[in-house]
Amino acid sequence: MAGGIGSRFWPASRSSMPKQFLDILGMGKTLIQITYERFLKVCPPENIFIVTNESYRPLVKDQLKGISDMQILGEPVGRNTAPCVAYACFKIATKNPDANIVVAPSDHLIMEEEKFINGINESLAYASSNDCLITLGIKPTRPDTGYGYIQYVNTEKKPEMDMYKVKVFTEKPDLQLAKTFIRSGDFLWNAGIFVWNVQSIIKAFKAHLPDMSDLFLEGNSSYYTENEEIFIKKTYSQCTNISIDYGIMEKAENVMVKPAQFGWSDLGTWGSLFAIKEKDYMDNAVNGDETIMYESSGCMVNVPKDKLVVLQGLKDFIVVDTGDALLVCKKSEEQKIKQMVADVKKRKNGAKYI
Amino acid sequence: MAGGIGSRFWPASRSSMPKQFLDILGMGKTLIQITYERFLKVCPPENIFIVTNESYRPLVKDQLKGISDMQILGEPVGRNTAPCVAYACFKIATKNPDANIVVAPSDHLIMEEEKFINGINESLAYASSNDCLITLGIKPTRPDTGYGYIQYVNTEKKPEMDMYKVKVFTEKPDLQLAKTFIRSGDFLWNAGIFVWNVQSIIKAFKAHLPDMSDLFLEGNSSYYTENEEIFIKKTYSQCTNISIDYGIMEKAENVMVKPAQFGWSDLGTWGSLFAIKEKDYMDNAVNGDETIMYESSGCMVNVPKDKLVVLQGLKDFIVVDTGDALLVCKKSEEQKIKQMVADVKKRKNGAKYI
Repeated sequence: MAGGIGSRFWPASRSSMPKQFLDILGMGKTLIQITYERFLKVCPPENIFIVTNESYRPLVKDQLKGISDMQILGEPVGRNTAPCVAYACFKIATKNPDANIVVAPSDHLIMEEEKFINGINESLAYASSNDCLITLGIKPTRPDTGYGYIQYVNTEKKPEMDMYKVKVFTEKPDLQLAKTFIRSGDFLWNAGIFVWNVQSIIKAFKAHLPDMSDLFLEGNSSYYTENEEIFIKKTYSQCTNISIDYGIMEKAENVMVKPAQFGWSDLGTWGSLFAIKEKDYMDNAVNGDETIMYESSGCMVNVPKDKLVVLQGLKDFIVVDTGDALLVCKKSEEQKIKQMVADVKKRKNGAKYI
Repeated sequence: MAGGIGSRFWPASRSSMPKQFLDILGMGKTLIQITYERFLKVCPPENIFIVTNESYRPLVKDQLKGISDMQILGEPVGRNTAPCVAYACFKIATKNPDANIVVAPSDHLIMEEEKFINGINESLAYASSNDCLITLGIKPTRPDTGYGYIQYVNTEKKPEMDMYKVKVFTEKPDLQLAKTFIRSGDFLWNAGIFVWNVQSIIKAFKAHLPDMSDLFLEGNSSYYTENEEIFIKKTYSQCTNISIDYGIMEKAENVMVKPAQFGWSDLGTWGSLFAIKEKDYMDNAVNGDETIMYESSGCMVNVPKDKLVVLQGLKDFIVVDTGDALLVCKKSEEQKIKQMVADVKKRKNGAKYI
């Protein structure tokens, strides 16, 4: 899934170049490249499909050299994750009706890759012989109010697989509720990473989103042909705008969760990037080779490699420069960036900075 | 005088493009252009001479279209203001031994131009018939510790001209001394603007800097010829590095001061630019058309016209962007900029940012 527009990483992320296509970690690779390479350890390249906005097709082709046009599923409009998952799964089913599928975001961080791949492989093995929908649940390390939580049933354990029946999906809680979740010990973060056999998810679509199921079934003769694009263009606009969590996972009875711990972050904000980045001795996280800090600490700095940046007296700030735009914002106020982007959009000439 | 390198306006000012050649006021004209146009109200363009580093000759020619090569006095090396004044005055004397001369920095701000021109014209008139060295003293408005002060003798007034005998030049005082100066009422700021007849200043050089006088007298047959450049190249390196204030003004007996008040600032630092700039309702001074401020006040912002700059939570900061370099620094710490520039210089690749 590579459809996000990531306005919270503005001004580094733009509508023409969202987060998944950026080297936001400063590793010399973009997030989608890192995700792609991670999954090459799970399956061959021809089995990887990228669902993204049609306008990002050239970016995907440019960044993932092993990916053919047929593997890029271009959405004409964004309709949240349920149509995105349906498109990919119904398409895959026409080629391989026994396929076991991993659905994963293209722009998350996974620091312990081996643990991740083991978890994915165990889940694939389980999904291949059990009619269920598996979600990977991240063991929470703090009462974060930015994530949804999954409560699981501790008693119905599948001991060999460390797999649990899901009791309930919850929305983002307030701080007090998040603390209660953590204390209870049977809540996990919803990372939006799913594993299932293609027949299980199709069955779930038929049961819980039957209209959407009908729409994508109609495409069976078009997938992998030159008619696919026309079919999708017509179909997408008819889809309900709904998430896979809300449309399927919260309603299905056969949902399992696999608790996991592999250094995960959704990299949702500059602050979450700061949290996982290596810091200098003054607790500054810096992307940029020519940055000098004086009396500054706790800052997240993201600037072009060859830009000289001299910062003095900044405490707990985000500093992002992209050549055409500069943002300086207190880390504690990063939730305001969304509104700032909206304000920029309203300005004369504002569109070119979004 | 256009020889300054103005490192305190870094990163806007560079050794290849110092302050006098920048539109630091955001008026659509550089400081030297504004100064030149101001003096066109005093004398014809062919009477204006620019002393600057030889390397800035192309910049001067580019910015002052009415100036010929003969009017640009290129210094091969900087030797402070005494050789700069000597070069210009000895050269002018060979063409017009009766010349009355104004010596003025090219990079100062004068907001009340008419008052300035009146003061200059009155001083020129006085200098033409009195053998004296006149300095314009700015009536101080605050106990500034960044300027030298001139104490004058209130009793020896020349009533028609508002002209006083100078008692003593002082170095930059500490705050307590500056307050005493202000309270006493007979101290003025030394603005480095001088008026004299060319014979008076030549006499003063002969008396107080005889070696330098001899050096520049030797050039009498070279000025305004093709030999001038060779002569100056040889002569300059033999000059003592000394200011006109220290070398002449503090030693001469016939120094007069004309108190003046014409909205003067030496524009010595970002803070002094902030002090004179128009502010928005949150007390921010902004050069740049696409700047948005949130919860920010007291900031001096100097960024390219078309750069989008979003600032949040900054109080009393200097923010300067030049495309290749960014400085964010507390206004109260601006005296550190000089050291920052030195630190940048020491870095690998640092030279290109200086």
